[in-house]
Amino acid sequence: MSGRLYALGIGPGASDLLTVRAARILGSLDVLYAPAGRKGGDSLALSIVREYLGAQTEIRCTHFPMSADNDEKSAVWDEVAAALVAETEAGKQVGFITLGDAMLFSTWVFLLQRIGRPDWLEIVPGVTSFAAIAARSQMPLAMEQQSLAVVSCTAPEEEICRALANHQSLVLMKVYGRFARIKALLAEAGLLECALMMSEATLPGEQCWRQLGELADDQPLPYFSTILVNKGVRV
Amino acid sequence: MSGRLYALGIGPGASDLLTVRAARILGSLDVLYAPAGRKGGDSLALSIVREYLGAQTEIRCTHFPMSADNDEKSAVWDEVAAALVAETEAGKQVGFITLGDAMLFSTWVFLLQRIGRPDWLEIVPGVTSFAAIAARSQMPLAMEQQSLAVVSCTAPEEEICRALANHQSLVLMKVYGRFARIKALLAEAGLLECALMMSEATLPGEQCWRQLGELADDQPLPYFSTILVNKGVRV
Repeated sequence: MSGRLYALGIGPGASDLLTVRAARILGSLDVLYAPAGRKGGDSLALSIVREYLGAQTEIRCTHFPMSADNDEKSAVWDEVAAALVAETEAGKQVGFITLGDAMLFSTWVFLLQRIGRPDWLEIVPGVTSFAAIAARSQMPLAMEQQSLAVVSCTAPEEEICRALANHQSLVLMKVYGRFARIKALLAEAGLLECALMMSEATLPGEQCWRQLGELADDQPLPYFSTILVNKGVRV
Repeated sequence: MSGRLYALGIGPGASDLLTVRAARILGSLDVLYAPAGRKGGDSLALSIVREYLGAQTEIRCTHFPMSADNDEKSAVWDEVAAALVAETEAGKQVGFITLGDAMLFSTWVFLLQRIGRPDWLEIVPGVTSFAAIAARSQMPLAMEQQSLAVVSCTAPEEEICRALANHQSLVLMKVYGRFARIKALLAEAGLLECALMMSEATLPGEQCWRQLGELADDQPLPYFSTILVNKGVRV
């Protein structure tokens, strides 16, 4: 059998929110690469998929540094991309898992840039965190002629403000450590009452806040916290 | 057993790109509501989920008119929402399926607005068409500090132009019938070489065009055609 590499979006958190295709592929892998938050630390992604893995699957946890040092990050991406290629070319069924979807705010894309588009690569899309948050909070995203912007709170402030002005509906990712500033921007735009925040959607620790104006600026937040805005909704 | 209503995002097209949760729920339904493109016509959504249905499931195909007459559309939404509520309150397990994700450009949201947020409602998120297109075409969406805009080509032209100017990456939905105009806007923005178009992603009729500048303005397109733009990519 010739080797294949699968980049698998595994969805927002609950194990049954990955696709039937991803579940089937996970059961057939020789090797699984799972990103870990810290060196030697647990992998949330691995805990999501563990029930689907076959007994034969070797697991390799890979730590991607959050460092601001681009050379350090680049060296790790080079190394992991080379390992994925080598194992696939050796004839193995290789998987790389990524939270949410594989092509949106995902480390996988840095690996893809290094691997190119070989025939033996298949990317399997996944449910994004914001689709899960919209479903769990019952807050609609865009409809009909409306538009949706998905913005990282690490973006320059003027970009966030422009997106708040221009779109009916917004997803503000990576709120962690930036809540006070984002809350102020939402207040300036008159949008605090059209916004909600959710952490760890579909996981046991899921939390939802619907009155962002009443939250303290230093409200402790989990790392995976996202704000949804829909100008047509009063939460 | 008390009744429950499930709004199920069933993903972009391939039957194995719905979630494990949606597949399990589909097997337990007493009644399934499936949207149909034409009155008495086939339902693409139904064909995607058919293999997961139990023998006991009654199927009700529902036609939502594409009419510009808002009263006519509103009357259908009222009627379907009332039917969903009545069957659920009668103790049945009721499903409503929707292509892609349930909360983004989905008829389901019009029903949700009429049903409210009862305890017996569960919304199950799905893989969006654009995540599938990104995966199939291997074209990344946004990364790190970048932003993504999801825009309907039915939106006013100045909104489309503003989104093209402001975002790193874009999804242009509902290209059908508007390709010549969108191609001209992409050319004006200098983005034709950063764009690709895909139709019927993950279905047997999937097509991908990577040289949009070379396509005729009157290129025949399937109804489900979407353009992806990423300013960091040359296709």
